[in-house]
Amino acid sequence: MKISDLGEFKLIGRFSKRFLNLPGGTLGIGDDCAVIPTAGESFLVAADMLIEDVHFLKNDISPQDLGYKALAVNLSDIAGMGGIPKYAVLSMALPSSTEVEWVDAFFDGFEKLAKEFDVALIGGDTTRSMNSIAINITILGQAKGQPIKLRSEAQPGDVICVTGNLGDSGAGLKAILEKLPIHSDAEYLIEQHHRPKLYVKEAQWLASHAEVHAMMDVSDGIDSDLHRIMERSRCGASIGLEKLPISKQLKNLATRLDWDLLEMAATAGEDYCLLLTVDHNHFEKLRLEYQRKFNTDLYPIGEITSQLDKLEYTLNGQYHSFSKKGFDHFK
Amino acid sequence: MKISDLGEFKLIGRFSKRFLNLPGGTLGIGDDCAVIPTAGESFLVAADMLIEDVHFLKNDISPQDLGYKALAVNLSDIAGMGGIPKYAVLSMALPSSTEVEWVDAFFDGFEKLAKEFDVALIGGDTTRSMNSIAINITILGQAKGQPIKLRSEAQPGDVICVTGNLGDSGAGLKAILEKLPIHSDAEYLIEQHHRPKLYVKEAQWLASHAEVHAMMDVSDGIDSDLHRIMERSRCGASIGLEKLPISKQLKNLATRLDWDLLEMAATAGEDYCLLLTVDHNHFEKLRLEYQRKFNTDLYPIGEITSQLDKLEYTLNGQYHSFSKKGFDHFK
Repeated sequence: MKISDLGEFKLIGRFSKRFLNLPGGTLGIGDDCAVIPTAGESFLVAADMLIEDVHFLKNDISPQDLGYKALAVNLSDIAGMGGIPKYAVLSMALPSSTEVEWVDAFFDGFEKLAKEFDVALIGGDTTRSMNSIAINITILGQAKGQPIKLRSEAQPGDVICVTGNLGDSGAGLKAILEKLPIHSDAEYLIEQHHRPKLYVKEAQWLASHAEVHAMMDVSDGIDSDLHRIMERSRCGASIGLEKLPISKQLKNLATRLDWDLLEMAATAGEDYCLLLTVDHNHFEKLRLEYQRKFNTDLYPIGEITSQLDKLEYTLNGQYHSFSKKGFDHFK
Repeated sequence: MKISDLGEFKLIGRFSKRFLNLPGGTLGIGDDCAVIPTAGESFLVAADMLIEDVHFLKNDISPQDLGYKALAVNLSDIAGMGGIPKYAVLSMALPSSTEVEWVDAFFDGFEKLAKEFDVALIGGDTTRSMNSIAINITILGQAKGQPIKLRSEAQPGDVICVTGNLGDSGAGLKAILEKLPIHSDAEYLIEQHHRPKLYVKEAQWLASHAEVHAMMDVSDGIDSDLHRIMERSRCGASIGLEKLPISKQLKNLATRLDWDLLEMAATAGEDYCLLLTVDHNHFEKLRLEYQRKFNTDLYPIGEITSQLDKLEYTLNGQYHSFSKKGFDHFK
């Protein structure tokens, strides 16, 4: 059997079973980050690998954007649990013919974002590859004096919400792949794909509130990511598609090109906003405080149900289904 | 300019300059591991990336051996400082056509070594690649209640020593690449290449002794690795080639095939034994204790000199030089 027949999540499930026996207090495979307890604080650890021609096309992304994004996707994992990103470990495999100027520009983008979030590059590996670029960043964060948020704490009745627009990054990728003429809408969406907004501070604030139950970052699209929460929390979810926050740029482009806007918003990945569930009794108060503090909205998009592993979509009260499902790396 | 013109170490020097401003007590790029201080202990962090057709040939290494070796090279980095390996974070990029059985076998090898050293796999990333396999492991270790050993503490007069035979792994690789007929000598050397002996316990014991000054693992060959110690400790080194410990299997094969045995022992990489410098007044006592405790030798191969960055070789008292230098990933 090939791994493409099994799929990404079943493959991970298959090998992660071998490693369930962890030191006390350690949280292993299955959340945005692993958690290592220490005397004074907990360490959060996550890793993301970017492969040329799978995650990016060298001719379609500037090295600055690539350096930025490689770190951004990792910062987002720390944000997904409400932690403070601290240290990055970078491994790069590069063809020998790579220009030094390309590497310099990669680090321009990386360094800009690292400085913004006060993240230190402390080590890694630099090696040759035959043809294509491979980048791995392992990020270490802290959860100092406040609880972290897991995927496993959602409860039936919780309001499901997201912190930003959905589908922009996926639409930006589509604009790149389909070589759409560059106008302001496509440009905006490509920018979201290359330099996604990160919700690190917002996540820390949300994690300090007990009424926030489960939290993670949106990396594979809410359809796929909600399944992760449903699995870990043993629950279901109902999403009102008319409530999904969608940018006017994506609306414009989808209308013009006849894209399925809702499918894109629900299934396209890499938006890197937060997906969280909140005690419904406290949601409106939390939302108001969040709006006041961050000058942006906490968008309610549905609710957690008790129907194990069932994700249902409605559109203005009618059931709705999609052909496409969330992203699987091996399919 | 291409990175192959610059070389691996100059490239690392170029970008690591950007990241010198680290949180207090943190040790960044430039040693076997980065060191993160916490309240009760220090965390050690290192990463190694293995790329198909650069670090291994899929048809020439079993998946079990690859899983073993991917973790081994990382454990060796923790050993290089005398730390205790604790947690591994594994990222794998695999072509969709990879057989699930291959992945299972990879984890058989990985798990065997992880259990031997009580290392927990706590997370990572699993993704698709277009053609070739890329593996990155980030390892986290602890240095609990004892000092760690750096590359920067060598002092003129120190005895330079290694803990195991040199050149075996490089010879094993050569045997694979040249498709030598498999007989017992070649088989032994290939085994050393695929499943190098690790000196984790030995390193912890050595790190607990103040008379051990600098220490690192031999990953690029002692020629290259001594340069790292010389740079960081601002000193030179003199090596007596007749003292290098060399296995009888390598001697046999080198004689039969007319290989330059000494060049191979001094410049071939991936032996993963320890390279350390010891106060010469205490060396013989330490060596005796080490022999008694580990039933193997601490081999003196030369001494640290005050001649900045000068590495000289002698053979039975005569100066000796090699055409080949230590391994550079981009050359």
